[in-house]
Parts: sequence; C-alpha cells; structure tokens
Amino acid sequence: MTKGPAPMAGEFTVGLVQMACSPQVEDNRQAAEDGIRDAVGRGAQVVCLQELFATPYFCQREDEACFDLAEGIPGPSTQHFARLARSLGVVLVVPVFERRAAGLYHNSAAVIDASGELAGVYRKVHVPDDPQFLEKFYFTPGDLGYCVFETRYARIGVLICWDQWYPEAARLTALRGAEVIFYPTAIGWSGTAAPGAAGLAERDAWITVQRGHAIANGVYVAVVNRVGIENSDAGALRFWGESFVCDPGGRVVTRAAGETPQVLVARCSRHDLERQRRAWPFLRDRRIDTYAPITRRYLDEPPWDPPTE
Amino acid sequence: MTKGPAPMAGEFTVGLVQMACSPQVEDNRQAAEDGIRDAVGRGAQVVCLQELFATPYFCQREDEACFDLAEGIPGPSTQHFARLARSLGVVLVVPVFERRAAGLYHNSAAVIDASGELAGVYRKVHVPDDPQFLEKFYFTPGDLGYCVFETRYARIGVLICWDQWYPEAARLTALRGAEVIFYPTAIGWSGTAAPGAAGLAERDAWITVQRGHAIANGVYVAVVNRVGIENSDAGALRFWGESFVCDPGGRVVTRAAGETPQVLVARCSRHDLERQRRAWPFLRDRRIDTYAPITRRYLDEPPWDPPTE
Repeated sequence: MTKGPAPMAGEFTVGLVQMACSPQVEDNRQAAEDGIRDAVGRGAQVVCLQELFATPYFCQREDEACFDLAEGIPGPSTQHFARLARSLGVVLVVPVFERRAAGLYHNSAAVIDASGELAGVYRKVHVPDDPQFLEKFYFTPGDLGYCVFETRYARIGVLICWDQWYPEAARLTALRGAEVIFYPTAIGWSGTAAPGAAGLAERDAWITVQRGHAIANGVYVAVVNRVGIENSDAGALRFWGESFVCDPGGRVVTRAAGETPQVLVARCSRHDLERQRRAWPFLRDRRIDTYAPITRRYLDEPPWDPPTE
Repeated sequence: MTKGPAPMAGEFTVGLVQMACSPQVEDNRQAAEDGIRDAVGRGAQVVCLQELFATPYFCQREDEACFDLAEGIPGPSTQHFARLARSLGVVLVVPVFERRAAGLYHNSAAVIDASGELAGVYRKVHVPDDPQFLEKFYFTPGDLGYCVFETRYARIGVLICWDQWYPEAARLTALRGAEVIFYPTAIGWSGTAAPGAAGLAERDAWITVQRGHAIANGVYVAVVNRVGIENSDAGALRFWGESFVCDPGGRVVTRAAGETPQVLVARCSRHDLERQRRAWPFLRDRRIDTYAPITRRYLDEPPWDPPTE
C-alpha cells in the first residue's frame, strides 16, 4: 500500500572524481576513467565527474575557436563513458560542452545509467558572466528545467556550478524526488597565489550555501570541483577543489581537503534521509500559497501578491 | 538620477538581546529593556528581541489557558517598547503573541520605528508542530506575506524561527529590499542534558542554513535565540542560544558563544553589501522563467511545468 516510487535498497554509494585538466581531451578522459575505476573499486555505484571535465576551463576568455571543443549528446564523451558504465555496471554523470546546433551550445551533463543507456540530460540553467568566467558567451541557458533521473541505484538530480547559489534550483530538484543532488563545478580564485582570508571565506561560503541546500531539502548533496592552476590570456585561475558530500542534515561526510586530484566515495542511506525528514519535516509546512512572487525579478513595485489563504 | 530607495548612511548597527525567560511577564519586559539599553549604549540603532520574549515558551504543551498570555497590537508590550523606542531613538523588533480576535492568534513581531510609531507587523508564515513545539495549536499562519519595514536606520525584514528553514521566505524578503533579515527564535534541545554530537550537529545545521540565506541573497542575517532550561508537563527544553549576525557573504561577524544571556551588537555596512552583490551577482541571473513550480506541493505528478523561454 506504499505510495510513491518503488523502494530501492537501503543505501547507495556515490563517487566524485576531482581532477586537474590538461589541454589534451584524451588525457582528461583517461584521468576521468581512472578515477571512476578507483571509485567503483571502493564501492561507488553512481560516479560524477567535474564540470567540463574534458577540457581546461576555456571560459576565461571569449574565443570562437573554443566552440570546436563542443560535442554532441550522443558524442565521443558519452559514447566512451557509456561503454565504461556498462562494463562496470555503474551510473555516470558526465558533464559535456554540448553542441546542440550550429550556434547553439549548452553547459550540460549526461546521465548514463548502469546499462550504458542515456538516462537523460541536464542543461545548466543559471549561467554566469564574470571576469574569467565568461559563460554567457558560450552557453545558452538550459531549457530542460530541473530533472531527476531514475537510475539503477538512485534517483539523482544534477545541477551545475553557478546553479549552486540558487536555492530555487535545489528546491525544485528536491521536489522532483532527488535523493542526492550532484553539483559538477569549476570554481576557483583569480590568479595563482594561495588564498588569503577573503579567498578562504569565499570557499567557505560556497560550501555553506550548498550544505544549506541539503538541510533545507533533506537531501544528500555531492559537489565535485576541479583543481589546478590554468593560465590564459586573461590571467590564471586557481581551482580550489574541496569536493565534498554532505548528508540530509548538512553534515559533511567526506571531503577532499587540499588542492590535489582525489577520488571521494560516500555511502548514502535512505534510512537516514527518511529519519532526517521526519525529525525536521520542512516539506510538510511549505507555505506554497505565499511563494508565487518568487517568479518576479524584484519586488520593488506593487502589487506584491499578498498570499491568499 | 539614482533609481531605488533614497540613500541612507553608509552603515547601521544592529543589536540582539538573548535572554532566559521567567514566568513573570514584567520581569521579561524589564530584562528585554535592560538588554536594549545595553545595546543602544554600545551603538545599536535597530534592536531585536527573541521570539515570544515576554513569556516562557508555552508551546511545549497544548493548554487553552495559555491564550491568556496573548495581547493585541497595539497592546501592553508594544506600548511599553514604543515609549522606550522614542526615548532612546532606536528601532525595535518586538515579538508578540498576538491576539487578533477571539480564537484567532498569531506568532508575530511588531516593528517600532525610532519615533515610537508602529512601522508594521510581521506574522510568522511557517508554523511548526512537533513534540514540545506544538505551535499549530496556538498560532494561525501569517497572512501578511513577507514584509520589509522602512525604518529610520535601515530597511529591515523580519522572519520568525521555523521560517528560518525556508529559503523561499528569505528570498522573498530579500526581493522586497531587506538589508538585514532578523530571525527572532526559540529553538533548543529536548531535555536538560548537555548536547551530544547529534545535538551539536543540529545547532550547526541551524546556523548553516541561515548563513546560506545571507549568502544566496547578499543580505545581513541577524538571529536571536533564547537560552535557559524551561520545564513543563511535557518535559524540558534546553534553548541553545548561539545568537549571531552574519554579513552578506555569510561570515559570522559576532556570535553569543555559550548558553548565557548576552547582548550582541554588530555594524552592518551598505558598502559591503553592495560590494558583495557586485562580486557575486546572483540576483542578476535568477531564472525566473523556471521557478513557477515552486508553488506546488511536490512534483511527483506531471505536468512539471517545463520552463518557457
């Protein structure tokens, strides 16, 4: 008599592959594959790669030639990792610089089920444009909404990098039934220098806001960021790594301390998720009659849509 | 040629009065007044009291007699603190167990401007109902929406306790133009024992999710919680205090370590708020075309309202 999706096993295990990227796509694919094999060897069933893992973070500058780095879905990256997913029996989240049509590109992530079949695609909804992060030049904002993918081992949501600052994105993904939200990411400090207090505070804010999404929604959050210094005409970026997994109470259960390539593995318990949401039943008390103005840009002009009861 | 509200001074100073409550309303009003005077003496211009500061936290049990604790707005509490606000030239946020009509009560906060005039009222929107926090028996959910109050010193938003777990509430208050969001609160552990690891993790989650609201919205957040052990027929609650102020980057600028009565004072800089929002321009990139389903209870049934462009 249970309502809702069919029950799965009591837990599932996620893996994250935090890498430094080289200019050689093949090298990056190999490093990603090595990381996936490492994670699977340690029990991972769902492994996520970092944002745009196949290339350096080319968005430091606006250069039409970089569109040559894009590929289709399906395309070389998804085909490569579909074979790997099938052979290892693992679910993979594979970020792709997606060429959808001439002049139409997205910052995407393909979800490949453990059968090797494509479970679906998420296209980054929130696209930044800041110095050395010139993504609006390259990527059209996603038009597939917030997705949850029913995979062999878990119901997973995927959001990408800049999305991580938006509580709306996490909420809508959780409301779709995600048990874990993956955030493939490319974030770091401008320049090559080790961070000072301000830089460390930035990184701490990035961790905090995402732990907040886990807490507010009662979901696991798994974040994978790149490491390494990447130079460009525009300067350099020092990617801060610090990939982590936190539980539905926001407790960090594993993290990649330091700016080195690392593979993280963490078990996620459906029992703990259920228990957390019973103890703090936030979903029960959402005042959905009061939220409509959230679709407005800013509430500086009346009417302010007072709630209806 | 500037657009938007008239500029104010470059900074304002907030105060928080963290108290233990006695069964005597007059004692609590006096303790609150003493705390306000202390804060003002240290430069505070806007001082916030804790949730239901005038009484013990009576919601541990369901008892009709407790409705006798309610009062009107205006009423004894607002009249008392309006006089104090005028005499000190300070803005006050005064939580009130509000009697609106026979059988109609709210968990409210009156905002009293430095002139002594009532700037407005916020009524708690999200009302919990958990063991020892039986608020749905006492309080009708607020019907005034999310408010920002233009006071002499700052544009302030007020949310109350359980609201603090809802990113929607913080977002809508920030979109109304709040520079700081106050969270008068009554939260603690069940029982009298010192917290173990699980209890400390709960408190950390409570801090984290509210710091997340500051970060996601680029606003100051000022949280004031009660302290002390309060016994009832239903057991006891040990209120964990830990009031704090964090800046628009989520950095905690002052906090009340330990479970003792304390008065906190923190300066809030409009320059820092502006700088934070320029560095991380999250409001620029909200994808308001994708947020409509946030007004749905859960997204387990199609249609899922895919975004329109």
